[in-house]
Amino acid sequence: MIKVGVVGGTGYTGVELLRLLVQHPAVQLQAVTSRGEAGTRIADLFPNLRGHLNLTFTAPSLDHLSQCEVVFFATPNGTAMQMAPALLQAGVKVIDLAADFRLNDVAVWEQWYGIKHLCPELLAEAVYGLPEIHRTEIAKARLVACPGCYPTAVQLGFLPLLEAKLIDPQSLIADAKSGVSGAGRKASIPMLMGEAGESFKAYNVLGHRHWPEICQGLTAVTKTPVGLTFVPHLVPMIRGIHATLYATLLEPTVDLQSVFEQRYQQEPFVDILPAGAHPETRNVRGVNICQMAVHRPPSGKTVVVLAVIDNLVKGAAGQAVQNMNIMFSLPETTGLTAVAWLP
Amino acid sequence: MIKVGVVGGTGYTGVELLRLLVQHPAVQLQAVTSRGEAGTRIADLFPNLRGHLNLTFTAPSLDHLSQCEVVFFATPNGTAMQMAPALLQAGVKVIDLAADFRLNDVAVWEQWYGIKHLCPELLAEAVYGLPEIHRTEIAKARLVACPGCYPTAVQLGFLPLLEAKLIDPQSLIADAKSGVSGAGRKASIPMLMGEAGESFKAYNVLGHRHWPEICQGLTAVTKTPVGLTFVPHLVPMIRGIHATLYATLLEPTVDLQSVFEQRYQQEPFVDILPAGAHPETRNVRGVNICQMAVHRPPSGKTVVVLAVIDNLVKGAAGQAVQNMNIMFSLPETTGLTAVAWLP
Amino acid sequence: MIKVGVVGGTGYTGVELLRLLVQHPAVQLQAVTSRGEAGTRIADLFPNLRGHLNLTFTAPSLDHLSQCEVVFFATPNGTAMQMAPALLQAGVKVIDLAADFRLNDVAVWEQWYGIKHLCPELLAEAVYGLPEIHRTEIAKARLVACPGCYPTAVQLGFLPLLEAKLIDPQSLIADAKSGVSGAGRKASIPMLMGEAGESFKAYNVLGHRHWPEICQGLTAVTKTPVGLTFVPHLVPMIRGIHATLYATLLEPTVDLQSVFEQRYQQEPFVDILPAGAHPETRNVRGVNICQMAVHRPPSGKTVVVLAVIDNLVKGAAGQAVQNMNIMFSLPETTGLTAVAWLP
Amino acid sequence: MIKVGVVGGTGYTGVELLRLLVQHPAVQLQAVTSRGEAGTRIADLFPNLRGHLNLTFTAPSLDHLSQCEVVFFATPNGTAMQMAPALLQAGVKVIDLAADFRLNDVAVWEQWYGIKHLCPELLAEAVYGLPEIHRTEIAKARLVACPGCYPTAVQLGFLPLLEAKLIDPQSLIADAKSGVSGAGRKASIPMLMGEAGESFKAYNVLGHRHWPEICQGLTAVTKTPVGLTFVPHLVPMIRGIHATLYATLLEPTVDLQSVFEQRYQQEPFVDILPAGAHPETRNVRGVNICQMAVHRPPSGKTVVVLAVIDNLVKGAAGQAVQNMNIMFSLPETTGLTAVAWLP
Repeated sequence: MIKVGVVGGTGYTGVELLRLLVQHPAVQLQAVTSRGEAGTRIADLFPNLRGHLNLTFTAPSLDHLSQCEVVFFATPNGTAMQMAPALLQAGVKVIDLAADFRLNDVAVWEQWYGIKHLCPELLAEAVYGLPEIHRTEIAKARLVACPGCYPTAVQLGFLPLLEAKLIDPQSLIADAKSGVSGAGRKASIPMLMGEAGESFKAYNVLGHRHWPEICQGLTAVTKTPVGLTFVPHLVPMIRGIHATLYATLLEPTVDLQSVFEQRYQQEPFVDILPAGAHPETRNVRGVNICQMAVHRPPSGKTVVVLAVIDNLVKGAAGQAVQNMNIMFSLPETTGLTAVAWLP
Repeated sequence: MIKVGVVGGTGYTGVELLRLLVQHPAVQLQAVTSRGEAGTRIADLFPNLRGHLNLTFTAPSLDHLSQCEVVFFATPNGTAMQMAPALLQAGVKVIDLAADFRLNDVAVWEQWYGIKHLCPELLAEAVYGLPEIHRTEIAKARLVACPGCYPTAVQLGFLPLLEAKLIDPQSLIADAKSGVSGAGRKASIPMLMGEAGESFKAYNVLGHRHWPEICQGLTAVTKTPVGLTFVPHLVPMIRGIHATLYATLLEPTVDLQSVFEQRYQQEPFVDILPAGAHPETRNVRGVNICQMAVHRPPSGKTVVVLAVIDNLVKGAAGQAVQNMNIMFSLPETTGLTAVAWLP
Repeated sequence: MIKVGVVGGTGYTGVELLRLLVQHPAVQLQAVTSRGEAGTRIADLFPNLRGHLNLTFTAPSLDHLSQCEVVFFATPNGTAMQMAPALLQAGVKVIDLAADFRLNDVAVWEQWYGIKHLCPELLAEAVYGLPEIHRTEIAKARLVACPGCYPTAVQLGFLPLLEAKLIDPQSLIADAKSGVSGAGRKASIPMLMGEAGESFKAYNVLGHRHWPEICQGLTAVTKTPVGLTFVPHLVPMIRGIHATLYATLLEPTVDLQSVFEQRYQQEPFVDILPAGAHPETRNVRGVNICQMAVHRPPSGKTVVVLAVIDNLVKGAAGQAVQNMNIMFSLPETTGLTAVAWLP
Repeated sequence: MIKVGVVGGTGYTGVELLRLLVQHPAVQLQAVTSRGEAGTRIADLFPNLRGHLNLTFTAPSLDHLSQCEVVFFATPNGTAMQMAPALLQAGVKVIDLAADFRLNDVAVWEQWYGIKHLCPELLAEAVYGLPEIHRTEIAKARLVACPGCYPTAVQLGFLPLLEAKLIDPQSLIADAKSGVSGAGRKASIPMLMGEAGESFKAYNVLGHRHWPEICQGLTAVTKTPVGLTFVPHLVPMIRGIHATLYATLLEPTVDLQSVFEQRYQQEPFVDILPAGAHPETRNVRGVNICQMAVHRPPSGKTVVVLAVIDNLVKGAAGQAVQNMNIMFSLPETTGLTAVAWLP
């Protein structure tokens, strides 16, 4: 049994991580920390965990967390970098679900996140936890930075086309849509049901933190800078991301369906739909799968990729557990085999 | 491995049953039938099952189904009674998720369901599949009638009070609310999202088929006729039932919290919340639990019970699997231990 | 043109009031105040008002507000009582949409609202603004306390039965359901779409501030104390209240449909549906109507009343405008004749 | 008063048209027809119209409709073309909310709609009812084809850029999102709340009937064929369209905000938001406005236009009334001045 700690278990990625960990056959939860809720029984805050988890939130303590083999950070940006160096020093592996270690370039990170990075020396060591690209490095990593929700869907969708040099890397457009849980579990007027319900809007068109993250990931594939327009939208639903991706085809005669099927045929968590199909976010709700379809509309030179994930699972907590499985040499699907429910 | 057949796998209770059965460690699915979808891959109709179920819908065939040890009917009312006699004759156990065998009195059944019953002789044999009351009989049954969704929540809520003779059996009021999946997966204007979304209404105030079923169940407890007012409502959400139950207390000084906790302390699928708490339907979404709280408002002589279930799980497919587990001497929670996700 | 001021225009009742007032043919908006948003163009905060309202929020000022003929308070509880005495002194009529003047008994008010009342001497003068009962007094009032949203629906529903002495006043049960806008436009975790969406729950079963308000109103009709059990619930929709009311009939043979139709036949904003119908909250969304149906289920002695309103219109801002019309001798429906849209 | 007939008043565009017409100060409704609901009181089918409309649905009759000055068709595609010739012959103006007269080229029409056109000779005469482009022709028209919902938003969004030759007409991408009411009020499984709720998907990526309509409209502006990729999506909400438009800028230094503001400064129903803003569909819910913002993300050469409408108002019934106002020389905003409510 792997001894596991969770720092920051009171948000949506936190409770989702707890749901997956309490059902994971190789995990023993040692500590779940929260400064604000220390002393509260976790199942009192999250009644879905009644009968499955008997722990109480504790204040984060390095001594306590150092007894774990791996510590997950399901915290706001800027928290993991405060404790990660000491934990790594103590021999504990660290998996960050937030953004602290996602960008390689400290200047870019500080520009987009607006704070000073406390351990820039770890940025080079941190492995970007997208197993479909970095599986080998993840297996050897001490510190894994789980990708953001949008970046997971967008990168997985563009990847086969960029790797095969089938599209113009300057022509990328990602029109992405997210359910409200992507904004987290914190009091805010715009995320009230009275505000976000029964309405649809774009936001942050002039700049979103996931834009440099996606650009970094795609540039690593193309080896040349990509031109990406990224427009996120808010959907009046709780879970799910739908990325609609557009690019200009360089090779108009290639069999795109085969390209996608072959790229992902060994991947347990990427599901390519048959030609002509349209994924729905509910197909992957609650599970660690990215479901995709590739289309070439009659207009001809533009390829359209449709990619859906659950932002809290393959876009956060599920991918984090997938990374843990890889880091601890477990079968990659351990604890991640549940079936989505429908409706 | 238990050889299992499912008749009518294209509705919401059907696909939910398939979700539970493909994850059940002791089940081998032999046949899933549908007249309308015969020849269609099940996972093409229900993409959540991709990678988990390779079967194709077949037309229902007695020969084929007779090779099963148990057959579930997830069909419209009036279907199970057409095939159940022959299957029982062939030594196959039958679990009906519809209403064909829920009422003991054939005249009452025919009055409420508007058709002639084809095998009234089986009504006496059929066991009403509410394990919290009939576990012993279920274990020995060949034919189990799973309770309706509203009747599950309402009976479990009134049960401790009636068994302990704490309330006036003539004073029962059940104000029940259901998500839209309770109406099934069939084309209808009132269940369009444009009609049922962002609105709330009562329906069938002058008579609902679950009323005689609840009365029958409660009368069996009290041994005297009950007076029950039952008002169902439609909630603009997909899954969940919330029953708000009212009755006049006969014993105003009793510790109601203890009565509920003691009645259900051995029940794996009934969860009594602490005093003062309010269950939410999402706490039990996707899982086989009835979560309850009991309150005595300041007005004094009225007790209020709040009971929530997922109408498709504890109110249908999950309870059906629970019954199967009992009938085949498996641990009752086998295949039913998943954790609800939140949000 | 009536010179109108609005104190506290940044909440949901505030913006709804502004929507109604900018379309009202006899109103001239003089001032809309907000401490927090002073200096902000109102239409920048509420883009639905672009092109209809050119005012800017100002800090509340007695000098400025005293130039109005009437001032509405769409503020949190405890605010109107700070300014109302001075405004009345200055000859300005006051209509409070909050709770400061709803209860006659200062001790009861202070118990339920947890603060000291600043002008208890005005409680006796304030008129409870439910025109279907107090139209004559409203016409002469300087200070009107608009009813709460639940109390509007519950009182209008029980009124015909209590006035005609058809039900046992000790047997009242109000199972009430509200959309999320009833909780107002303020940052809070429980009202996030991720929390309130796709779920249903009861709340405050052991005590809600609308309970003493309803009891006071109904007792004024019966002249004897009523026994009322009141259970509010939260519905995953934005607007609407559905009250399902239960009581024990004393006169089982009376024609209840006629009782309701006759009681409200002169009322422009109460709509009695034909026998057997079920109102839906969407029927009255955005409009100042209470739509009702009365049923007697087969169980016999219990009467069921179904009453729906829009909590922000007939339950708040619309009723406030209706009161203003009465106070200024305008036709009561002035500015309140829009048609609900569907879907 | 204009004598008005409505053919096909039982769908969502029909009931929305009735809502607008009963409040229109210059309209007298003469007949509302429906084969299926003939004899039903309209307000019984649509309770929002109770007290506002006393008519009963009648079977469509040429004699009866010929007494109108204008007849609206809120019918499925293929219906208006059956009666339009005779009505025009009788001197009645015709406004079609469906697609029968939207395309100039009969061959293209028959290819996309799959049926033979019954009066191709009228295609040349019919005026495309987008007042922001064709106001002059609409004023003189006998037959107006109201644009589809997506085409309204997409064309209004691209128009200023194409007219000013600021973008490459081969580079157009329209990522469009619609609420479920766009699919109409007809029984269908995919539009059940259990299917469309809490999920998001693209559909018809390989071909949607609005694609040739948009191409026709934009080509008329550019005078050269446009290259348009159009991807519609279904949003789990009832009303609203959000079009996110992308194109490659030819003139990277132009002040796009001014271009949009100047193009639409005289338009009563187009509202350009300030630079940096994001429209939300709820801002225009229930009203006849297209609200837009234009952005140039940091990637540089791609312009992003965000355009929202209510698909049933500016995308259907409201635009139809706007066209009627123009055809009858009324002020264009007559009957269309209501304020959207929020939330």
